[in-house]
Amino acid sequence: MARKILLINGPNLNLLGTREPEVYGKQTLSDIENAVEQQVKAANGEFLCFQSNHEGALIDRIHAARTEKIDAIVINPGGYTHTSVALRDALAGVAIPFVEVHISNIHQREAFRHHSYLSDIAKGIICGLGTDGYRFAIDFALKNL
Amino acid sequence: MARKILLINGPNLNLLGTREPEVYGKQTLSDIENAVEQQVKAANGEFLCFQSNHEGALIDRIHAARTEKIDAIVINPGGYTHTSVALRDALAGVAIPFVEVHISNIHQREAFRHHSYLSDIAKGIICGLGTDGYRFAIDFALKNL
Amino acid sequence: MARKILLINGPNLNLLGTREPEVYGKQTLSDIENAVEQQVKAANGEFLCFQSNHEGALIDRIHAARTEKIDAIVINPGGYTHTSVALRDALAGVAIPFVEVHISNIHQREAFRHHSYLSDIAKGIICGLGTDGYRFAIDFALKNL
Amino acid sequence: MARKILLINGPNLNLLGTREPEVYGKQTLSDIENAVEQQVKAANGEFLCFQSNHEGALIDRIHAARTEKIDAIVINPGGYTHTSVALRDALAGVAIPFVEVHISNIHQREAFRHHSYLSDIAKGIICGLGTDGYRFAIDFALKNL
Amino acid sequence: MARKILLINGPNLNLLGTREPEVYGKQTLSDIENAVEQQVKAANGEFLCFQSNHEGALIDRIHAARTEKIDAIVINPGGYTHTSVALRDALAGVAIPFVEVHISNIHQREAFRHHSYLSDIAKGIICGLGTDGYRFAIDFALKNL
Amino acid sequence: MARKILLINGPNLNLLGTREPEVYGKQTLSDIENAVEQQVKAANGEFLCFQSNHEGALIDRIHAARTEKIDAIVINPGGYTHTSVALRDALAGVAIPFVEVHISNIHQREAFRHHSYLSDIAKGIICGLGTDGYRFAIDFALKNL
Amino acid sequence: MARKILLINGPNLNLLGTREPEVYGKQTLSDIENAVEQQVKAANGEFLCFQSNHEGALIDRIHAARTEKIDAIVINPGGYTHTSVALRDALAGVAIPFVEVHISNIHQREAFRHHSYLSDIAKGIICGLGTDGYRFAIDFALKNL
Amino acid sequence: MARKILLINGPNLNLLGTREPEVYGKQTLSDIENAVEQQVKAANGEFLCFQSNHEGALIDRIHAARTEKIDAIVINPGGYTHTSVALRDALAGVAIPFVEVHISNIHQREAFRHHSYLSDIAKGIICGLGTDGYRFAIDFALKNL
Amino acid sequence: MARKILLINGPNLNLLGTREPEVYGKQTLSDIENAVEQQVKAANGEFLCFQSNHEGALIDRIHAARTEKIDAIVINPGGYTHTSVALRDALAGVAIPFVEVHISNIHQREAFRHHSYLSDIAKGIICGLGTDGYRFAIDFALKNL
Amino acid sequence: MARKILLINGPNLNLLGTREPEVYGKQTLSDIENAVEQQVKAANGEFLCFQSNHEGALIDRIHAARTEKIDAIVINPGGYTHTSVALRDALAGVAIPFVEVHISNIHQREAFRHHSYLSDIAKGIICGLGTDGYRFAIDFALKNL
Amino acid sequence: MARKILLINGPNLNLLGTREPEVYGKQTLSDIENAVEQQVKAANGEFLCFQSNHEGALIDRIHAARTEKIDAIVINPGGYTHTSVALRDALAGVAIPFVEVHISNIHQREAFRHHSYLSDIAKGIICGLGTDGYRFAIDFALKNL
Amino acid sequence: MARKILLINGPNLNLLGTREPEVYGKQTLSDIENAVEQQVKAANGEFLCFQSNHEGALIDRIHAARTEKIDAIVINPGGYTHTSVALRDALAGVAIPFVEVHISNIHQREAFRHHSYLSDIAKGIICGLGTDGYRFAIDFALKNL
Repeated sequence: MARKILLINGPNLNLLGTREPEVYGKQTLSDIENAVEQQVKAANGEFLCFQSNHEGALIDRIHAARTEKIDAIVINPGGYTHTSVALRDALAGVAIPFVEVHISNIHQREAFRHHSYLSDIAKGIICGLGTDGYRFAIDFALKNL
Repeated sequence: MARKILLINGPNLNLLGTREPEVYGKQTLSDIENAVEQQVKAANGEFLCFQSNHEGALIDRIHAARTEKIDAIVINPGGYTHTSVALRDALAGVAIPFVEVHISNIHQREAFRHHSYLSDIAKGIICGLGTDGYRFAIDFALKNL
Repeated sequence: MARKILLINGPNLNLLGTREPEVYGKQTLSDIENAVEQQVKAANGEFLCFQSNHEGALIDRIHAARTEKIDAIVINPGGYTHTSVALRDALAGVAIPFVEVHISNIHQREAFRHHSYLSDIAKGIICGLGTDGYRFAIDFALKNL
Repeated sequence: MARKILLINGPNLNLLGTREPEVYGKQTLSDIENAVEQQVKAANGEFLCFQSNHEGALIDRIHAARTEKIDAIVINPGGYTHTSVALRDALAGVAIPFVEVHISNIHQREAFRHHSYLSDIAKGIICGLGTDGYRFAIDFALKNL
Repeated sequence: MARKILLINGPNLNLLGTREPEVYGKQTLSDIENAVEQQVKAANGEFLCFQSNHEGALIDRIHAARTEKIDAIVINPGGYTHTSVALRDALAGVAIPFVEVHISNIHQREAFRHHSYLSDIAKGIICGLGTDGYRFAIDFALKNL
Repeated sequence: MARKILLINGPNLNLLGTREPEVYGKQTLSDIENAVEQQVKAANGEFLCFQSNHEGALIDRIHAARTEKIDAIVINPGGYTHTSVALRDALAGVAIPFVEVHISNIHQREAFRHHSYLSDIAKGIICGLGTDGYRFAIDFALKNL
Repeated sequence: MARKILLINGPNLNLLGTREPEVYGKQTLSDIENAVEQQVKAANGEFLCFQSNHEGALIDRIHAARTEKIDAIVINPGGYTHTSVALRDALAGVAIPFVEVHISNIHQREAFRHHSYLSDIAKGIICGLGTDGYRFAIDFALKNL
Repeated sequence: MARKILLINGPNLNLLGTREPEVYGKQTLSDIENAVEQQVKAANGEFLCFQSNHEGALIDRIHAARTEKIDAIVINPGGYTHTSVALRDALAGVAIPFVEVHISNIHQREAFRHHSYLSDIAKGIICGLGTDGYRFAIDFALKNL
Repeated sequence: MARKILLINGPNLNLLGTREPEVYGKQTLSDIENAVEQQVKAANGEFLCFQSNHEGALIDRIHAARTEKIDAIVINPGGYTHTSVALRDALAGVAIPFVEVHISNIHQREAFRHHSYLSDIAKGIICGLGTDGYRFAIDFALKNL
Repeated sequence: MARKILLINGPNLNLLGTREPEVYGKQTLSDIENAVEQQVKAANGEFLCFQSNHEGALIDRIHAARTEKIDAIVINPGGYTHTSVALRDALAGVAIPFVEVHISNIHQREAFRHHSYLSDIAKGIICGLGTDGYRFAIDFALKNL
Repeated sequence: MARKILLINGPNLNLLGTREPEVYGKQTLSDIENAVEQQVKAANGEFLCFQSNHEGALIDRIHAARTEKIDAIVINPGGYTHTSVALRDALAGVAIPFVEVHISNIHQREAFRHHSYLSDIAKGIICGLGTDGYRFAIDFALKNL
Repeated sequence: MARKILLINGPNLNLLGTREPEVYGKQTLSDIENAVEQQVKAANGEFLCFQSNHEGALIDRIHAARTEKIDAIVINPGGYTHTSVALRDALAGVAIPFVEVHISNIHQREAFRHHSYLSDIAKGIICGLGTDGYRFAIDFALKNL
């Protein structure tokens, strides 16, 4: 059956491709969303995506996913990874399986980035593999979630 | 004199009654708000309520309470309990006495839920008593605040 | 069926009403016990109460509650809240559901009062609501335990 | 060349001047913004300002500053100082130099206010000098950033 | 020469055999005391035993052991293991060698049970071997202490 | 006016003089109590003393002191120094000024002896000066409390 | 140019597929190695693999990789993830880029599994995606390393 | 049915009896292994033993135990007690019940010896009872595992 | 009335301008002292200054300030910021209001520089604004202290 | 034989009697030194005293005490109590027994005052008994050191 | 009498001279071993050396040293410095005095390299002096051990 | 070219040779300084030395070294090792390479001696090798700095 996948990007990821391309790559968020859309459609899946810098808007979007019968979420929570219990509760609340993705290797960065409020309720985590991380997460979601 | 009471519910509490009823009970947020409204009116009080998943919206609502001359706030801050200094500052800033309520027993959950940024400026805290916690908090507010 | 409720007060609570009335209120422990007794009887329940400054005596009393077929315990463990694993073990051992009550808001006091050895095995916790906390705990116990 | 300066105030700073004047002074936020505007204009600079209680709105505003070619930001992040990695990432992302200002001396307050997620990427920090702190930060920004 | 052995059991161990038999076994404290008595007598030793939920009573009993010329103590300190410096001081004060026994494996339980105030002054420690632990401790005491 | 002084000794101090005289001196507790009695009477004061290994008994005794109109307490809390919040609460509850005495230098002993639950509410603390510590504490109490 | 890839599995991974298939899947280590070999060959790459329970043997193997001109390593370090500085030094010493893979989600397990001595020198980390994690790591290595 | 027991000794235990006899006793490892062998055979059991200073060799040996259908393991993990997650994983992986033995009282030694990576998955732990500890562990294993 | 201001610089600040000009600027300590002197005189104030590498000399100088009726102190305590309780006590002892200045942004440096023994008793703190920090501190002192 | 006693006072104690008399009393340092001198002479002892705000000067003075054959030192180390390993080493180096005195109760003050680098090598410690502490320390030194 | 010296190098030190010569110098391990051999022979001593990446092999080698009557060991434990209790136990077990050497300055590296399991039982430690460290250690061993 | 070497000894090192010779050896500081002087002169170097118990004097001396064009410093910072940021700043400020020497093995002493404020900016560190440590440090400095 066709899978319905939601890609969520958190704060500051709208800046992708427009700054520090040597760190975050040259792809804009649109490039990523388009590539993922192709990947999902190639698997006869349905694709939705969302980006916001607002913690509350991300939570609202996750709540809506339950009504929409989303099968799996791929989420890069940006800076809210390390600070948002509310985002964790939203994901736990809708009980939709999700994969956590980080473009850079957060273990090479500041100590406060080494803890995620989402990881222990995620299916899995990918970090440091650049924008390929999204592709792997979608691949996993399409086949396993 | 009639008391004016504001009930605030934070992130994810809009999901109440629609998931994990064995944990959070079968009551929806509307059920709770209605029950509380009856309780306040029975005491000739005035009742207002608000729910949001947005930290900023909760702060805006608390600020407005000062203008409205709210006598007491009963608040279930959800996940912001453990992460929001700004919410604390808003409550301290308007200087309206409040009671903090948690439906589940947060001491039986993850360690990061054992600390609240609100408790030491609250009048009191009730947790683990299910939705009865709201009733007790309102009862206290009507009689003492 | 009629509920059988045991109210336990720990060390120093025999001093209630005789010192710092602005903090702990003017009610003596007898006043509280009498009020609670009325409350339980009004619900056709059976009421017993006990106070001791001796950790061992509190444990002995809790053990006896099992034989007496107590339905629920409301306990203000006083200073033993923060230091007594043995009291915790006694409550866990008899497996009678209980509510933990603190008259003052322990989160406004010394850091060592922020941890309770009982909270994670309690049904719920009420603190900072003065002697009203007992009333709410009894109300909850009568209806839910 | 004329400098373009953006003044940002975070959560609860809209309450300035209306409560606890003995702590925060009698100046309202408007008073401060007007004074700063005069100071910037006197130096032939261009001035913009923004206040919000919403973390996401603050991030959106900072992103916009890059397009507007803002030369320097003066920011009082309020309660988000201590909790927002996303705000830090926004400031780092747009790479506009900024000065962090706190009206009160945060080292005289609760322990959780002693850490700032912004300070190590700020040009400098001023705290405890009341609303004069804004004036000094603007003076520095006009001459050095 | 005949050894004189004292078996001490601390708080809540009087409940043994009457609750959670799948965890603590079906043996009552009497069963254990009787079995140990047989074991000591079979080795021509003298046997005494004591149980109390009162920290002070345990200390008094240990003090008395010095006068009685007890050769060795086997003690299961229950919940006082983790909280009683006074019990430690009593055992150190009478300078009678002792073995510490725990029926369950305390390392599989809450973190606060991982520290014992007695272990570093005990001859040895046995935990998790059920009521066999008493038998081994007595065996050791009879032969080595 | 004649001062009424209560000397309290906690757990294991009944063993004084009968063990490790090189550490604790050769004086028995009776010797100390007699010497202190002489010292108080020489100052026309009234003297009472108490020793117990039971935390609850010590608390009961402190409560009684309020009725007896004791002016000052000199207390060596023994092992309860480091573990008893209830003892602290008793002393705070009766609001009688007290001096804390330790015969040995607790800073040369195990790390867990470096913290006292009583010190920050005591008038002063003397440790390591042997049984002279009692004499100095009484001297201070007679003149200042 | 053809890529030369080395797959290393650490302690206990030889047990894969033979125990707890609901956790670790039904695939044996051979199954995984064969699948990866096909994947690498399909990309015209060269494939080598190694498993050992010996820390020293793993280090020796990594050293040899330098001589063999391995382009990239994919490693599941098993239990040595959390304890081996020597393994870290070996990987840093040969300066071959590597991806760290964990089959299960280590953030859902014991706290000591939340820290890895390898992650901050890895290119990236994948965990919790089952044996698909190997496939994604190889895919990344073939295209980017 | 006859029990099949494996005794494993970790690093440096081959030195037993040849150094510090006042601490570790005069028995060599062979003496211990012979004594245990007699004990197991007397109970009609089958006995195997192994000692190595190599972490990997210990893991390999534990893996082999599964094929050999060992009923229980008695293990003194020596210095690997405190550092080896891989050894823990091996024991958990083969799912053979085991008892952890330490000859000396590890609680009287350096702080880093107070934590064991094995204890929470062991059946039980014996420490400080000298080489008698092996005898007790075998006794337990023969009767209960 | 004319203000009397004392500028104190602590250890190593005599090296200013002679090393790492890209970090600390090209101004020597004399340059700074002269500039500040002009600033104070322009406000009809009286100016004194002092630099020493000796903790005791700094304390002596602060004590003298009380006799001299200094109105305000501006101090850059250098390395003593993080280690000197005695310096703190001196400033608290003379009860002269002071502003703490750091030329560099101490939050970008080693962790041990993130704590100051002076900040919580200072009027305010300025750091990272280079030698402009002195000017702002003096400005504040002249107008507010 | 006549005892030779040295009284040392550390930083800021020269301010005694001139500030916060409600905390530190009205006695100046001279008053104290004179009183102690009388006390020592009354016991036919020899008295020397020293005060400095310089850590090095205090160390030099302690070194000199060895040559002078001082029998005992009474020292109030002021702020160096909490920060000076060098002072500790000086006292340990000359191996003269000493008593540590604090006028105020350091346990009622900031957390950093709860640790002393001297206490574990002192004979004893007196704190919180005001300037009587000196008298008791001298009394002890005259009789026991 | 001629000294018998054993030089031991731990994991990854076989790579010396072949990578990062600017950090570790151009000398290979053979160069170092040869130089040390000359140094020992020049002092009429006997020299043995060993390198392994296997923790167990290092332990075995240290055990053998006792039989060989080695007078002193110079050891660079590489990554096992920070993780191996077993290595520590081996060195303590054979009771041969040893000097610990690190080529680089471990205090300039990651925090986990700041603790060594060997240092407190070593004669002395040299770090950061490059391969000269070996020469100094050998010099010391020849003259003092 | 001839090297100019400065030897600095910190607090209490003037006592060397006059106390605890079994720990610190029989050599006085003069003996050491003379021996080092011979060593430097034998290498045609120039030698200066300094000892002080005053932190400020040590800093002043280090500052002077820059003017004197000292090539290298060998420093035993004594107790200031663990407490002086100002000393660290002085050494960093003059940018003269230095070697840190401790006569005793600081890792065998109190925990507070395990951290040095100098080590991470030193070229290297030698400890526990007695006064030979000075010789090795000078040797290194003459050849490498």
